[in-house]
Amino acid sequence: MIIVADNLHVVNPRLAAALADFDPAPIKDLVLRCQAAGAQAIDINSGPLPKQPETHFAFLVETVQSISALPLVLDTTNPQALEAGLRTCQNPVIINGFSLETAKLERILPLAVVHNADIIGYLLGPNSQVPTDADEMMAIAVELFEASSNAGLPSERLIIDPVIAPLSWDNGIRHNQAVLTVLGRLPDLLGAPVRSIAGISNLASGPIPTRRKVALEQAFLPMLAAAGLDMALFNVFHQGAVEAARICDALLGEKIFAWTEDGA
Amino acid sequence: MIIVADNLHVVNPRLAAALADFDPAPIKDLVLRCQAAGAQAIDINSGPLPKQPETHFAFLVETVQSISALPLVLDTTNPQALEAGLRTCQNPVIINGFSLETAKLERILPLAVVHNADIIGYLLGPNSQVPTDADEMMAIAVELFEASSNAGLPSERLIIDPVIAPLSWDNGIRHNQAVLTVLGRLPDLLGAPVRSIAGISNLASGPIPTRRKVALEQAFLPMLAAAGLDMALFNVFHQGAVEAARICDALLGEKIFAWTEDGA
Repeated sequence: MIIVADNLHVVNPRLAAALADFDPAPIKDLVLRCQAAGAQAIDINSGPLPKQPETHFAFLVETVQSISALPLVLDTTNPQALEAGLRTCQNPVIINGFSLETAKLERILPLAVVHNADIIGYLLGPNSQVPTDADEMMAIAVELFEASSNAGLPSERLIIDPVIAPLSWDNGIRHNQAVLTVLGRLPDLLGAPVRSIAGISNLASGPIPTRRKVALEQAFLPMLAAAGLDMALFNVFHQGAVEAARICDALLGEKIFAWTEDGA
Repeated sequence: MIIVADNLHVVNPRLAAALADFDPAPIKDLVLRCQAAGAQAIDINSGPLPKQPETHFAFLVETVQSISALPLVLDTTNPQALEAGLRTCQNPVIINGFSLETAKLERILPLAVVHNADIIGYLLGPNSQVPTDADEMMAIAVELFEASSNAGLPSERLIIDPVIAPLSWDNGIRHNQAVLTVLGRLPDLLGAPVRSIAGISNLASGPIPTRRKVALEQAFLPMLAAAGLDMALFNVFHQGAVEAARICDALLGEKIFAWTEDGA
């Protein structure tokens, strides 16, 4: 399972100030700490970009790749910013992301084809509504897959995100059980080896003690891994979650695994 | 998932001395600590009983039930000791266990029927050989189920143990992946809601640092839980594993779950 850091989110005031001032130092510092904590890819979430979206997003990408060779996940809903990021990015790149929403299909998905990039597709309805059960999720997965094929995207570039629900939602537990079911069925359903990603931080969002958040993430990650999840997006400073992701590889991998070592 | 303590194992020298002297204090002390740590059932593993097996095993059962109302898992291969334990036991009781081995089918399985007890059936071949893949495990599960039905055991009394392999085995990782597959398929395979149990301590047996053992148990438990495991047998002093088992219930249960509380 590839560990993707979701720590670089410009909603963080220190990062927002750095972006406003084009100051690379706090961003570089964060990226280096994410790498040290075990990140294997970095999600760059710019948040809303009211001014000069292209310049700001390109600055973020340039800053991160100046000190990291990790794959970058370009996380913006602004197509201009995204395109600027894609033009700037020299690391392996993933677009985050598209859905069945018309604006996304028309303005985000084609960028993956043009720039030969991987792209995350969310299992959400055309109005971004969250599906209510496994059958609905699978119907959306088929639609996403067909939409991406029709747009000219090779299936190996599609990464499906089944959308983990916060446990605070009324149907959060049931929703996430459906996510496990759908992950396990995706390969047969789509008839192609499409990868998957999940945003684990959604699980315990809100005012929950960090220790409890990590414990929940640590328990849900192995369920997702056993169901076939390829990539997990979460706070890599949650050490227990990083360790869980590594142990999942050990428990599920084909490789001979140094199971006596602490480093996994 | 029901947490079964495997801590009461007479291989422990302090317990061996207590058993030899018919001294209940160390046994009671251990059981109370297991309960406090989260045990929901207690496995009583007498080890070999060279002298007076009936008296010794009955003493163990009597001692445990004198201070605990938890279900007791009677873990001995000696049919006389087991029968003495069954006669003594007033708590809910589970026999641990039988397999396709002739001696077990002839001398252990019938005791479950006579004493109206639950019984664990191991997915092992007739010579106690470990199956090599999921197909072989499922064939054995069907044979176990039929053998128990033919003996007159109601299916709701059968608890299947798919036998977790130590990761130190050459094929341990692959074996345990097959265990996950088989757990998920048991209900359809047997056409009856048969319960399952797994001995998690097997996973990281041997000279592995405790912290590492717990981390492995903590990651494997959610995989087993998501595959449908009903009961887990492990060292309940591994606090991380107990916490993982509780969170699995929260993540997989139908009940509304107090997800903000530390106590799960």
